[in-house]
Amino acid sequence: MDKNLLHGMIRSFLAEDIGRGDLTSESIFTEAETGRARLVPRQSCVVAGVGTVAAEVFRVQNPDIEVFDLVADGARVGPGEVLLTVEGPVIDLLKAERVALNLLQRLSGIATLTASFVDEVRGYPARITDTRKTVPGLRVLEKYAVQAGGGSNHRFNLADGVLIKDNHLAACGSITEAVARVRAKVPHTIRIEVETENIEQVRECLDCRVDIIMLDNMDTAAMKEAVAIIAGRALVEASGGVRLANVREIAATGVDIISIGALTHSAPSCDIGMDWFV
Amino acid sequence: MDKNLLHGMIRSFLAEDIGRGDLTSESIFTEAETGRARLVPRQSCVVAGVGTVAAEVFRVQNPDIEVFDLVADGARVGPGEVLLTVEGPVIDLLKAERVALNLLQRLSGIATLTASFVDEVRGYPARITDTRKTVPGLRVLEKYAVQAGGGSNHRFNLADGVLIKDNHLAACGSITEAVARVRAKVPHTIRIEVETENIEQVRECLDCRVDIIMLDNMDTAAMKEAVAIIAGRALVEASGGVRLANVREIAATGVDIISIGALTHSAPSCDIGMDWFV
Amino acid sequence: MDKNLLHGMIRSFLAEDIGRGDLTSESIFTEAETGRARLVPRQSCVVAGVGTVAAEVFRVQNPDIEVFDLVADGARVGPGEVLLTVEGPVIDLLKAERVALNLLQRLSGIATLTASFVDEVRGYPARITDTRKTVPGLRVLEKYAVQAGGGSNHRFNLADGVLIKDNHLAACGSITEAVARVRAKVPHTIRIEVETENIEQVRECLDCRVDIIMLDNMDTAAMKEAVAIIAGRALVEASGGVRLANVREIAATGVDIISIGALTHSAPSCDIGMDWFV
Amino acid sequence: MDKNLLHGMIRSFLAEDIGRGDLTSESIFTEAETGRARLVPRQSCVVAGVGTVAAEVFRVQNPDIEVFDLVADGARVGPGEVLLTVEGPVIDLLKAERVALNLLQRLSGIATLTASFVDEVRGYPARITDTRKTVPGLRVLEKYAVQAGGGSNHRFNLADGVLIKDNHLAACGSITEAVARVRAKVPHTIRIEVETENIEQVRECLDCRVDIIMLDNMDTAAMKEAVAIIAGRALVEASGGVRLANVREIAATGVDIISIGALTHSAPSCDIGMDWFV
Amino acid sequence: MDKNLLHGMIRSFLAEDIGRGDLTSESIFTEAETGRARLVPRQSCVVAGVGTVAAEVFRVQNPDIEVFDLVADGARVGPGEVLLTVEGPVIDLLKAERVALNLLQRLSGIATLTASFVDEVRGYPARITDTRKTVPGLRVLEKYAVQAGGGSNHRFNLADGVLIKDNHLAACGSITEAVARVRAKVPHTIRIEVETENIEQVRECLDCRVDIIMLDNMDTAAMKEAVAIIAGRALVEASGGVRLANVREIAATGVDIISIGALTHSAPSCDIGMDWFV
Amino acid sequence: MDKNLLHGMIRSFLAEDIGRGDLTSESIFTEAETGRARLVPRQSCVVAGVGTVAAEVFRVQNPDIEVFDLVADGARVGPGEVLLTVEGPVIDLLKAERVALNLLQRLSGIATLTASFVDEVRGYPARITDTRKTVPGLRVLEKYAVQAGGGSNHRFNLADGVLIKDNHLAACGSITEAVARVRAKVPHTIRIEVETENIEQVRECLDCRVDIIMLDNMDTAAMKEAVAIIAGRALVEASGGVRLANVREIAATGVDIISIGALTHSAPSCDIGMDWFV
Repeated sequence: MDKNLLHGMIRSFLAEDIGRGDLTSESIFTEAETGRARLVPRQSCVVAGVGTVAAEVFRVQNPDIEVFDLVADGARVGPGEVLLTVEGPVIDLLKAERVALNLLQRLSGIATLTASFVDEVRGYPARITDTRKTVPGLRVLEKYAVQAGGGSNHRFNLADGVLIKDNHLAACGSITEAVARVRAKVPHTIRIEVETENIEQVRECLDCRVDIIMLDNMDTAAMKEAVAIIAGRALVEASGGVRLANVREIAATGVDIISIGALTHSAPSCDIGMDWFV
Repeated sequence: MDKNLLHGMIRSFLAEDIGRGDLTSESIFTEAETGRARLVPRQSCVVAGVGTVAAEVFRVQNPDIEVFDLVADGARVGPGEVLLTVEGPVIDLLKAERVALNLLQRLSGIATLTASFVDEVRGYPARITDTRKTVPGLRVLEKYAVQAGGGSNHRFNLADGVLIKDNHLAACGSITEAVARVRAKVPHTIRIEVETENIEQVRECLDCRVDIIMLDNMDTAAMKEAVAIIAGRALVEASGGVRLANVREIAATGVDIISIGALTHSAPSCDIGMDWFV
Repeated sequence: MDKNLLHGMIRSFLAEDIGRGDLTSESIFTEAETGRARLVPRQSCVVAGVGTVAAEVFRVQNPDIEVFDLVADGARVGPGEVLLTVEGPVIDLLKAERVALNLLQRLSGIATLTASFVDEVRGYPARITDTRKTVPGLRVLEKYAVQAGGGSNHRFNLADGVLIKDNHLAACGSITEAVARVRAKVPHTIRIEVETENIEQVRECLDCRVDIIMLDNMDTAAMKEAVAIIAGRALVEASGGVRLANVREIAATGVDIISIGALTHSAPSCDIGMDWFV
Repeated sequence: MDKNLLHGMIRSFLAEDIGRGDLTSESIFTEAETGRARLVPRQSCVVAGVGTVAAEVFRVQNPDIEVFDLVADGARVGPGEVLLTVEGPVIDLLKAERVALNLLQRLSGIATLTASFVDEVRGYPARITDTRKTVPGLRVLEKYAVQAGGGSNHRFNLADGVLIKDNHLAACGSITEAVARVRAKVPHTIRIEVETENIEQVRECLDCRVDIIMLDNMDTAAMKEAVAIIAGRALVEASGGVRLANVREIAATGVDIISIGALTHSAPSCDIGMDWFV
Repeated sequence: MDKNLLHGMIRSFLAEDIGRGDLTSESIFTEAETGRARLVPRQSCVVAGVGTVAAEVFRVQNPDIEVFDLVADGARVGPGEVLLTVEGPVIDLLKAERVALNLLQRLSGIATLTASFVDEVRGYPARITDTRKTVPGLRVLEKYAVQAGGGSNHRFNLADGVLIKDNHLAACGSITEAVARVRAKVPHTIRIEVETENIEQVRECLDCRVDIIMLDNMDTAAMKEAVAIIAGRALVEASGGVRLANVREIAATGVDIISIGALTHSAPSCDIGMDWFV
Repeated sequence: MDKNLLHGMIRSFLAEDIGRGDLTSESIFTEAETGRARLVPRQSCVVAGVGTVAAEVFRVQNPDIEVFDLVADGARVGPGEVLLTVEGPVIDLLKAERVALNLLQRLSGIATLTASFVDEVRGYPARITDTRKTVPGLRVLEKYAVQAGGGSNHRFNLADGVLIKDNHLAACGSITEAVARVRAKVPHTIRIEVETENIEQVRECLDCRVDIIMLDNMDTAAMKEAVAIIAGRALVEASGGVRLANVREIAATGVDIISIGALTHSAPSCDIGMDWFV
């Protein structure tokens, strides 16, 4: 995650929450008053965005704020463990607090859910990956949280990956034609992926040397058959209807990748608070 | 919600998801090919952001896209009901699809959860309101979704509302002093709210004519007592630990406002898809 | 006033005045030559924006510029008193000079005019407040200058305050209906203000528990009557035609707030210059 | 004035005044309600920014707003004359009103003051010009208003004109050296101007073929002498202490340009209002 | 190429060239005067950016400008052939002219040079691709021009492709270790490319299943050997020292991709002018 | 060149090349690993943008990067001479490398070509100047490079210089009328330039006291005649068809300025690389 990019995002988030100033705190505190506080989870979770994001929120608000006691992203922590301590002007700590927490809670929520899926498939080679079902404006951060939780990333946007779906196929008449059109245009650095709904389509993909074959909403029997047919000639991605309850069974089919929209669109927020030192 | 503001947000969301272009669709379709599709929920929900947000995503992507069959925000819809139909260049429909859905799913999720709380307190005068626990960058939209679900908004940011919390009180020594400092500085158009933890603090708030008294994490017995003491001389806001299971009991205490962070930080996304016409 | 917000504004102001560079100074000085200068008023005035704004202009232009000898905002100074001393690379001092002075002259002009009105009403409880009649792009700064001059701020923009005017009333048919519509929608943290033209409207406002009643262009007799009728049940704001010559008479009617567009739209600029040390 | 540039400015001005929306109007009106209003001065003035600026504010707020009955910039109008009529959605008319008026009042104030100076020197060839003493962020507009009032523009910023002042001279040791350094660096398309304080400096300027000689704070006797010595070999600019009371006497000395900071830093705002049709 | 993205770029390019307005044209023409002109090459070339870029420059400057007679990008045209005709307000045609030409000349220069290389390797399967050696700020456009000239694109930036170079290898100790670290982190949608300097490194790449093997500055004998060893198990990219004089010999070695920095960093600009209709 | 302006440009260039991060380097290096590298030309050249631009690219990417051993802009260097040494986190050095090199190669190419023209006319007073034929987005930098190569700048954009061309003349009917219209409008700080095609036009320019007369595409005989007629009453600029082969002959005609589009639109990039210390 590039820092210049991140700082730009944080600046706009702080502007949203602070507006032209903190009416309450600026009326009560002087700029000279300093304080110390720490971010502490109220529940067990896998954290994401501690030193990388939350700490930077405080630094962007005021470069004089010092940050220490950082827990590493990806760590599994219990309620009450200190994630990060901040010290500096009280006004700026209060101004940065909400944005830092809102981000940390959401990113840790994503990392925690991702880790549950990763734990579930342990022993199988399948990677757990995200999708483009992220909150608009937060994709860089949410995909980072998936990595912190032990998952992998799918393409970042429409420009850095190719996924040929049913609409594309309908327009071209065949997988073969669609793949040919795409292959003629896209950088050779990018793999071509095709969404398939049945074994026949899987075979056509193999014939035209597709790099990644997505098995869309297939049952595990069909997945197993597909994996056997593909036999290592393409990466196999399972997609659709993946839940904690069935992810291990899906992994057992031998697919290489299991992509899950819920990692980002439905991860519950972690409960993390900011405690002030007396 | 102001359209110029909204369009700026949408432009940056589209840029995030599209990058420099849609490698797949631009390889397969020409700019001349048009199509038609509709947004359809796969579950029952209270919708938010249909004509106001999702439709605008398509229009910003390409002003030539036509949008019709719009369902009003706040409507309760069942699975399969058409929310919106779009028609225009296929490339642009595909480019706008994901951003439109990501927003619509999240906003409808918030509206749906808000409506559950609103339904729960029906018969009592208490308003259900949001907090500042929104996803950074989306506050305008998420607070709009709370309204679509029948809820009300709390302050938008640190600059358009005053909330004196324990840190502020600690720094001033007393509620009376904190309120005096704030009252001397803030616009007369803004009410002063103080967070209280016990009845003694409630009484001090009344003495210095606080406009809104927040009862923070009090049990319902304490809330009832506070409401009785306040007796209409200030608005009373209940906050902390509000769940669907206890919200009606809280409303029964006679508080005016019940604020709930979960409306925005923990609303599950609604399942909504885009179906193409054959 | 938030520093990140301020710095963004200053950067755009400097860009406007400097363009791609200072043709004259960059031809004559090297980056290594340093100098020292001070900002000095040529007249008596109440200063605003010394350490908060002018000093920051120099720092944003070049963080190596040192600023000292700062006079506090709100101070009453005489001609020749040093407001601020700057030291650093001559090129950067010259590049920042005009923007720093243009802002300081305007803001001090506003503070000085505000202080005249505040002095005039001394002994009465009435607050002197600004309006939205500020120079586009400078509202944050101009409202800050009003505070430095001893005044108070009215709402900042259309989103953080409610003011129901004659058009709104005409559309609704009655104050009662207009207030009802607004109360159903706006955050409970914001007071509702209604503009009234006669005593009858004042009474209707009281009936529907309006928070702030604006007496628009009433004579002082009517104001007195209104204040008596309202009797503390709402804040009373006098507006329209307020001048230094009549403001004390208006304050004597007992109104709580006197809002004056002239504070920002017609304050004469203070004469302040930059003197170089020999 | 370039329209793309102008629209960017207007968008940021509207954002400042509207924030996330107009709480009052959006609670009372629907998007379908339309209205008609006109901008009308309450005093005699020379208008600036009618069709060029105010009309564009309405169009940027909502391209569906229609604007007609435009008075030309530079026109002298009396109280009550309609400057512009607008028709469209009431919400958008109300949202744009304040920004349109704030700009129109300020720009017309500048044009009116400029015209007074221009009227005063009628019969003499001297041009009345502005300076860089403009409100930060509004320079393009304020310099345009000076033109509308019959004045001319001085350099726009530090990058498109050269003005060698006393600091520059002090650093170089002589006018001759300063001019040489500058001439070696700046585009040949830009004239070189030097600020002089006495006749000796004027002569040195002539010796090194300076293009514009500024007579800074000289009395009219000295000005006359300087004009005689220069004898058309350079443009002559009078600057410092110019008032309506002495501008004609200055013009009578034969100078080519009279630059006046007060045109922009001290022009009183014109009183212009928006009247709704019944 | 996405239109919203493109329009943002064009707006900033126009701002650079126009500044606050066209002093000359705005002094001479009224907004009502219209004209007609056409863009015409003075030499043979392969055009890029006609309808896609130059036409959009005119439309962004003023949406009322009409564009017709468009030649398709990638067309080979001779001197005097009309590429595009524009009609609209003269002021806006003149304001847009230089930006449109500067872009069209550069992009057509790139397309023309690319086409020379493509022509040279005709008959061989090798693709001609660009690199990241583009002019900062123009990458999207320059990579588009390479496609218009018949070439292909390499990765767009550091985030959408992987290229392991000597520094990376030095840090890891071996290709095997470097590839392992990268494979664990990057999306499965992206191919892994390694830069090799000798046959030994090529073999190590094959052992760890690298997707693309770059032969960096190898002679054609070494390339042939590498191609034989790789035998279709990875894409082979030749890079370094490629010129029109040797590109066919390189293609003859059987490599899949030939990447050439000169396509963008050294393409001579095409001579294209704007002719006005009498 | 103003640093705030420059940093803004660099930030957007880095964003273009880095995207959301460097997939390769961030997978291989930790943030703690540091390295050292130097920029070294592979050919003789006149450098531009070493300390002013390339060094700043590294500093903007990470302020902790140290830069030393800087060669001054305008220096003539041979292959292998170190231009600049950088030391800091490897990840950031790698992220900044390509942007720094792309800029340095292009700017040094422009400086080198400019210096060739300047060398060619040595002994004659003629200045070599650029035009507006620069790469969109880079004008400030490219015009700086022309200065580094010993050349001068023509106007920066349409707003800071006046050039009356044939279209303008056609619209006005005569040079006299065109000049009158322009002179009435433009700041007195800007010289008026007219493009002429024959001696008759040159005479008309003199009659109306044009400041700069451009001789457009005239042969050297005509230039000589024009110079003789003008006799120092205006600056004379030769333009059109200037090449290294004929520039000395043109300078010999006595013109003051020779403007050359090729300086920026056709300068070959210099070959400069980044070498890492072992």
